[in-house]
Amino acid sequence: MKVLVVGANGQIGKHLVTSIQNREGFEAKAMIRKQEQASFFEDLGAETAVVNLEDDVEAIAKAAEGVDAVVFTAGSGPNTGPDKTILIDLDGAVKTMKATEKAGVKRFVMISSFDTSRKAIQDAPESFAPYVAAKHYADEWLKSTKLDYTIIHPGILSNDKGTGQIEAASEVERGEVPREDVASVIVASLENESTIGKEFQVVSGTHSIQETISSI
Amino acid sequence: MKVLVVGANGQIGKHLVTSIQNREGFEAKAMIRKQEQASFFEDLGAETAVVNLEDDVEAIAKAAEGVDAVVFTAGSGPNTGPDKTILIDLDGAVKTMKATEKAGVKRFVMISSFDTSRKAIQDAPESFAPYVAAKHYADEWLKSTKLDYTIIHPGILSNDKGTGQIEAASEVERGEVPREDVASVIVASLENESTIGKEFQVVSGTHSIQETISSI
Repeated sequence: MKVLVVGANGQIGKHLVTSIQNREGFEAKAMIRKQEQASFFEDLGAETAVVNLEDDVEAIAKAAEGVDAVVFTAGSGPNTGPDKTILIDLDGAVKTMKATEKAGVKRFVMISSFDTSRKAIQDAPESFAPYVAAKHYADEWLKSTKLDYTIIHPGILSNDKGTGQIEAASEVERGEVPREDVASVIVASLENESTIGKEFQVVSGTHSIQETISSI
Repeated sequence: MKVLVVGANGQIGKHLVTSIQNREGFEAKAMIRKQEQASFFEDLGAETAVVNLEDDVEAIAKAAEGVDAVVFTAGSGPNTGPDKTILIDLDGAVKTMKATEKAGVKRFVMISSFDTSRKAIQDAPESFAPYVAAKHYADEWLKSTKLDYTIIHPGILSNDKGTGQIEAASEVERGEVPREDVASVIVASLENESTIGKEFQVVSGTHSIQETISSI
C-alpha cells in the first residue's frame, strides 16, 4: 500500500513516514512544501513530491497519482495566523480531498483535532476558535464526500516516546498522546478497513493500538 | 412577508430594512449586535433582535422564529482580521442557515461576494484569499441544504445613489453596483420565486431590477 502523506514534514508526518517505511507491504510518498525538506525522507527511502497546499487541486492530484491512500496531517497549527488557518487547515484539506478523488484514490485518513464539534467552536477560547472552526468544516466536508474516510481526533500531542498503548472511542476523556503513537494509530487505521466511515478520539491508555483500532 | 435581516446594521442592511419597510406587504426584523443600534430601525417601524453571530444556533433561531425569509448580509468585511472572517463570514453564515432550518423557515437569501469560485480563491491576492475562501464555503454549505436559497454575488459595492438599473446573470463583467441597488435586488429576489435555487452576479447596467430579476 502506497500512502501519500500530506504534511510529511510536520512532527506527526515525520513519525508517520518512518512508521510506514518500516512496515512490511507499505511505502510512503512524502508531500513536502520545499525541496530542502526532502533529504529526511530520501534517507528513509521514501519518495517525495514538492507541492504547496496553497497550490491548486491539479498540483496536489499529481502527487496523489498512483497511491492507494492519502493521509492529511498538514496543519498551519493553532499558533499561525488565522489567514493560514482557513487556507491550509480548511481549504488545503478540501483541495486534498478533491485531488484524492481526481486521482481516483478512495482511502483518506484525516488527522483532525480532539473535538471539532459545533459546541467545541462555541466553547473555544477566542484565539483558538478559528482553528476549531476550520477543522470542523474540513471534517464536515470529508464526511459529505464518497471517500473511504477515517477521521482521527488525537488528544494533546506530546513528543514523548510512543508507548503503543492507547484509549480510542467516539468520545474519550481529554488527555495527552505522543505523536509517535498517533502515527502508529494512522498506520493501524490504514490496515483496518473497519475504520472506514468512522471517526474517533485517541489518547494514551492501556490497550494495544492494534487491538483497539481493529475493534473500532 | 416578514424578513429577518441578519447584519441589518451594515451598509447594505440599512438600505435593505428601509426598502422592506417601504414595500407593501413586507416587514423587516433587524438582527443587530448591540441594543444601541436599534433606534435607526425602530424609527423605520421595524422590529429588532439583538443577537451576536458568535452566539449559538439557538440564539439566532429565536430571532428567526415567525419570519418568512432570512437574508444574510452580515460580514466581517475583507478588512477585519481573518479570525473574524472564519467565525462570521463562514461559521456565522452556517449557524444562520441552521437557525433558519430550526425555526422552520425555508427561504434564505445570501449576499455573497462577486466571485466565490475555487479559481477565485486561488487567484485572490494573499490578504483577500481567506475572505474569498470563507464566502466560498458558506455558499457551498448553503447549496447543500434544503433551504429555498438565492445567492447574490454583487460587484464592487459603492455608496452611490441607486439607479434601479442593473445587469445580472450567472456571469457578468466585474463592475460597480450601489449598495442601494443591491438592497432592491434582494427585495426583488424575495418577490420572485423563480430565483430559488439560483445564484447570480449583479452590477450596474441598463435593465430594470424588476424585469431582470423576474427573468433570472
